[in-house]
Amino acid sequence: MLSKNRIKYLRSLKLKKFRQKYNNFTVEGEKIVSEILQSSNVEIETIIATSTWKTQYFNQTFGKSILYEEAVENDLKKITNFSSPSSVFLVGKKMSADWEDDIFKSNFSLYLDGIQDPGNFGTILRIADWYGIPYVFCSGKCADLYNPKVIQSSMGAFLRVKVIPLDFEILATRYPNVPFYGTVLDGKNIFKINEYEKGVIVIGNEGKGISSTILEQLTHRIFIPKGKNGGAESLNAAVATGIVCSVML
Amino acid sequence: MLSKNRIKYLRSLKLKKFRQKYNNFTVEGEKIVSEILQSSNVEIETIIATSTWKTQYFNQTFGKSILYEEAVENDLKKITNFSSPSSVFLVGKKMSADWEDDIFKSNFSLYLDGIQDPGNFGTILRIADWYGIPYVFCSGKCADLYNPKVIQSSMGAFLRVKVIPLDFEILATRYPNVPFYGTVLDGKNIFKINEYEKGVIVIGNEGKGISSTILEQLTHRIFIPKGKNGGAESLNAAVATGIVCSVML
Repeated sequence: MLSKNRIKYLRSLKLKKFRQKYNNFTVEGEKIVSEILQSSNVEIETIIATSTWKTQYFNQTFGKSILYEEAVENDLKKITNFSSPSSVFLVGKKMSADWEDDIFKSNFSLYLDGIQDPGNFGTILRIADWYGIPYVFCSGKCADLYNPKVIQSSMGAFLRVKVIPLDFEILATRYPNVPFYGTVLDGKNIFKINEYEKGVIVIGNEGKGISSTILEQLTHRIFIPKGKNGGAESLNAAVATGIVCSVML
Repeated sequence: MLSKNRIKYLRSLKLKKFRQKYNNFTVEGEKIVSEILQSSNVEIETIIATSTWKTQYFNQTFGKSILYEEAVENDLKKITNFSSPSSVFLVGKKMSADWEDDIFKSNFSLYLDGIQDPGNFGTILRIADWYGIPYVFCSGKCADLYNPKVIQSSMGAFLRVKVIPLDFEILATRYPNVPFYGTVLDGKNIFKINEYEKGVIVIGNEGKGISSTILEQLTHRIFIPKGKNGGAESLNAAVATGIVCSVML
């Protein structure tokens, strides 16, 4: 059973300011925890889990060096970020956000210009993971990578795709010869372009699209064609990212 | 100001069983309500809104036949389905779910085989709307179309795309000569198929994919190719729908 103070601390990590203070984050669920245990990308602070979980998973997969705290269901209920708790709750240290300079030699990257919905952010990381995009840059207006909903909807992608918070200006200045693609209403049909040089695909905010200062710096304005009799004004940001990646990569 | 009883009634509509009992649903937000006011597809039961909203929108757009109930911000806070209330809350009658028999002459349809996340369901309707798909069939295991999160994430698409709850068997029996497409791991690369005959695109459940009985009845097994070095096991159901539609339609 967890102490009151311990529960208070774990609950505080729901908030970005405490995740920043302690430089850590939380994940829940057997599948993602077992992925983390097999990955070398996350330094684990502690694992809080039921004894059933421990019996089934703890000894098999890793040594003594990881702190395990036994919890009852009611503890997990108190600390969960979701509507129903899982049998395991992990606290990990935030990951580094460095990148190699020659990333555009053989890869595309994404630049998220203010993706605010955590579900969209995580889903976009999952897309990047599916397409083997190693780096996703994001503006300061994006949701927090370590928001539990981002982590959850990324389905483990946050372990493989590096997310780099960075001003667009810095990226554009550092890579003056790299193409910057962005979807706009008067762009060129993505299906009518034969080859795409490796570069950055800019994904705009859910409501406002790509911001005007970034729009000016796009080298390629592209467009996802609408269907005959199509009615919607736009596509969801993650769906648009998926379509663009499927065609460009 | 709304009475206690009125608030109780409006709050009850959060639950599917009460939406079923009263055969209605709720929507919130200026944009979607103004879309409904301009659409002939929804019979409006009542509009609950602030006096500011009324002054700005009520007289301009429609006549006296619609019931308007004035509410203060605190009322709207009590009845909202979201974390922050909008200035307007509408109760509408559920729409009919009939369809024309010759739908596959000139259109594709989607069949949702248990899309349980309301955000995914709404996002898929938005995709159908973008691509001009007039009918989306869904199994009994799907989220409720009138779940407020489905309505919200559809971004108005539920007004234009008809959603038909229907057993797959009925659809397959009724249209024995129509192709049924579904994404599977060992399917044919969607980019390597030159032409797609109009038919039904089956979208599987978020966790389990397409159910085995439906898998057996697919006439075309297709596949979204993964990127080089791609890590994710799968794509989000709505993202996969978007990619498939962008290529097939």
